[in-house]
Amino acid sequence: MFKAKLESAKEFKKVIDTISTLLDEVCLVVDEEGVRAIAMDPSHVALVSLNIPRLAFEDYQADSHEIGIDLEAFKKIMNRAKAKDKLILELDEDKNRLNVIFENHGKRKFSLSLLDLSSSAAKMPEIEYNNTITLKGDAFKEALKDADLISDYVILKASPTEFIVEAKGDLNDFTAEFTEEDDALINIEGEESVRSAFNLEYLLDMVKGISKGDIVKLYLGNDMPLKMEYSLAGAELTFFLAPRIEE
Amino acid sequence: MFKAKLESAKEFKKVIDTISTLLDEVCLVVDEEGVRAIAMDPSHVALVSLNIPRLAFEDYQADSHEIGIDLEAFKKIMNRAKAKDKLILELDEDKNRLNVIFENHGKRKFSLSLLDLSSSAAKMPEIEYNNTITLKGDAFKEALKDADLISDYVILKASPTEFIVEAKGDLNDFTAEFTEEDDALINIEGEESVRSAFNLEYLLDMVKGISKGDIVKLYLGNDMPLKMEYSLAGAELTFFLAPRIEE
Amino acid sequence: MFKAKLESAKEFKKVIDTISTLLDEVCLVVDEEGVRAIAMDPSHVALVSLNIPRLAFEDYQADSHEIGIDLEAFKKIMNRAKAKDKLILELDEDKNRLNVIFENHGKRKFSLSLLDLSSSAAKMPEIEYNNTITLKGDAFKEALKDADLISDYVILKASPTEFIVEAKGDLNDFTAEFTEEDDALINIEGEESVRSAFNLEYLLDMVKGISKGDIVKLYLGNDMPLKMEYSLAGAELTFFLAPRIEE
Repeated sequence: MFKAKLESAKEFKKVIDTISTLLDEVCLVVDEEGVRAIAMDPSHVALVSLNIPRLAFEDYQADSHEIGIDLEAFKKIMNRAKAKDKLILELDEDKNRLNVIFENHGKRKFSLSLLDLSSSAAKMPEIEYNNTITLKGDAFKEALKDADLISDYVILKASPTEFIVEAKGDLNDFTAEFTEEDDALINIEGEESVRSAFNLEYLLDMVKGISKGDIVKLYLGNDMPLKMEYSLAGAELTFFLAPRIEE
Repeated sequence: MFKAKLESAKEFKKVIDTISTLLDEVCLVVDEEGVRAIAMDPSHVALVSLNIPRLAFEDYQADSHEIGIDLEAFKKIMNRAKAKDKLILELDEDKNRLNVIFENHGKRKFSLSLLDLSSSAAKMPEIEYNNTITLKGDAFKEALKDADLISDYVILKASPTEFIVEAKGDLNDFTAEFTEEDDALINIEGEESVRSAFNLEYLLDMVKGISKGDIVKLYLGNDMPLKMEYSLAGAELTFFLAPRIEE
Repeated sequence: MFKAKLESAKEFKKVIDTISTLLDEVCLVVDEEGVRAIAMDPSHVALVSLNIPRLAFEDYQADSHEIGIDLEAFKKIMNRAKAKDKLILELDEDKNRLNVIFENHGKRKFSLSLLDLSSSAAKMPEIEYNNTITLKGDAFKEALKDADLISDYVILKASPTEFIVEAKGDLNDFTAEFTEEDDALINIEGEESVRSAFNLEYLLDMVKGISKGDIVKLYLGNDMPLKMEYSLAGAELTFFLAPRIEE
C-alpha cells in the first residue's frame, strides 16, 4: 500500500511545476522512508533528484512500490489545488492508478493512470566541489531572469568573497554581484576563483519553484557541472546541470 | 419611463457576464415590479431566466417597457465598471437607447442602441423534482472546473446523503463527493438516488458569475434537465439545462 | 561624468513605459541642473518633453552630456525593476554605455549600448490657452479607456464649469462629465467654451504612466493642440498632441 497526506497541496504543486519543466515522466520510488525519484531530462543535460522524507508528510504509510507518473497530466491536476486544500496521494493497486485527492470543504478525487516505468538507472554524480554558495533563492532567480533579457546563456563565477551572475549580449551586458555585504548572499565557501557557463533555459526551469524566503545552495567549479539544492514544502530538490562549453 | 439605480455596478457586471456567455441578445421586460427576462440559448439546450425585483434597486421608477439589448455590447460596457461605481440604467425613449451611467467621482455615460426584439415566448418549464441540493457555489464551480480537465461532460448524482460530481476520461477520472459532513454541502433533500449527465461547457457558463460566499441550489432527476438557482447582487438567476444522453 | 541615483526604480519605470509608447529613441540631455529630453513621435503628431530636476534624485553628479537611448531596450531593462530596488544611472564614457543598476539585496547591473543621437531640434510650442483643467489623473484615464470602447477618437470640451470627454460611435455613444461638484475635477479656469478632437490611441499612450493619486493638468482650445502635464516620481512630463480635424 501507499497512502500519504500533505498539509498543503498548493506548496506541493510547486514541486511538480518545477520537475515537470525538466521531465516528461518520472518513476516515484516509495517505501517506508519516504518518496524518492531521480532522472535525467530527455536531452541528458540536466539531472533531477527529488527526496521527500516521511517526516514531511502529515500521515504516511507505505510498502515498497514504483509508481510511474505522466508529469504533464499530474501537473494539470496539481494546478487545480486551492489555497487551503490538503493533498492525499493514494495508490490503487487493483486499478493501477494514483488517486490524487484534494481535501477541504469537500473531497475532490482525481485518479491518474500509471505508466509502466522502471526506476531510473540514473545516479547522483559524486563530484568534489571547492566552492559552495548559499544565497537567497529569489535573488538568484531574479538575476537569472535579468540575464535572460541579454543572452541565452549565463556565466556563474565565485571567488572567496563574491558570487557573480554574468550575461553578454551583442549590444548590452548584465552583471549581478553578490558580496558578503549584501543580505542576499548568506555564505560562500571555497579558496579558489571558479567560473562555468550554463544554458539559461535549463537554469530557469530549475529555479521555477523558488519563491520569497527559499534558500538555495550552489556548488560550482571550473567548467564543471553545477549542483543546485533547495527545499520546497519539505521536499528536497537537487539538480545537476552540465556546463556549456564556451566558444 | 424607466430609470433604475444599483448600489454596485461591479456586482451587476457579474450578472451580465454570466447571461452573455449563454445569450447573444435579450429582451428585458421592465414594469413597476422590477426587471425580468427569459430566453433560450441559440442552440436551445439551456434556458436562462433573470429576475431583479424592484427592491434590489437603490432607486427604481418604471412604466411597462420591453428593452432589446445586444449583450455583447452591454458586456463590454459593464466591463468598464470600477470598484465603487454606482450604476444607473435609464431608457431614452426618444432616441431608442439605454443610458448606462457609472457614477463615482464623476459621471460616465454610455448610450446603447436598442434592438427591436419582442419578449421571448420561452416559459419556465414546470418540472417536479425529487432531489434538491443546496451547496456553496464556489465549491460546485471548482468541482466543475476540475471535471473540465478530464472530460467535456459531467455526471451529477444525488442520494439522500451525498452529492457527487463525476467525470470519466480516456485515461484519468475525477470524482467530487459532498456529504453532510462537508461544510460545502448545506442541505440535501430527496428520498431517491438520481443521476443525469450534462454538457460541461454549458454548466461552466452558468456558474460563471458565482464567487466565494454565493449559495447555489440544484434540482436533479434521472436523465432530466438540471435546474439551477442562485442570486447575484439581488438578481435571481435560474437556469435549465437539457441532460446529455449518454452513449 | 554622469551618475544619478533614484529612490524607486519601479516609479521611474512608469516614466520610461510612458515615453517609450510614443518614442523609439531619445537623446537625454544631462547637466548639473538635471536630465531633460524633448522629442516628436515618429509621425510628428505628438511632442514629448521630460524634465527631471536634480532635486528629484537621491544623489546626482553630472557634467554636460548627451546620451542617446534605445527606448525599447531601456524599457525591457526597466521592466526588471523590483519593488524596493533603488536605481543608479551611470555613464561609462570609455565604453559609450549607460549602466543601469538596480540596488537592493545585491547589485544587478545592465550596461546599455548608446545610440549616436544629437539632441532634438524640437522645441516646446508657445501657445496661449484660455482654458486650463486640473483633474484626477486616473478619472481622466478611465474616461479615455471608456471612450476607446466606442470610437478611435475623442472630443474634449471645457466650459467655465464643466469638462467633458465625448466619443461617438456608429451605434453607441459615450460621455463623461466632470463638474465642480465631482471630486475628480480639482479646478477649471477659462471664460470660454472650447472643444477639440483628438486621436485616442495617442492620448492613451500619453496617460499610460498615470496611477491613482496622480494629478493631470490639461490646456485646451478650439481645434488647437492639447497640452498635458503631470509628474511621475519627480519627473515632469509634458505632452502636446495635434488636434484631429473632424469631418
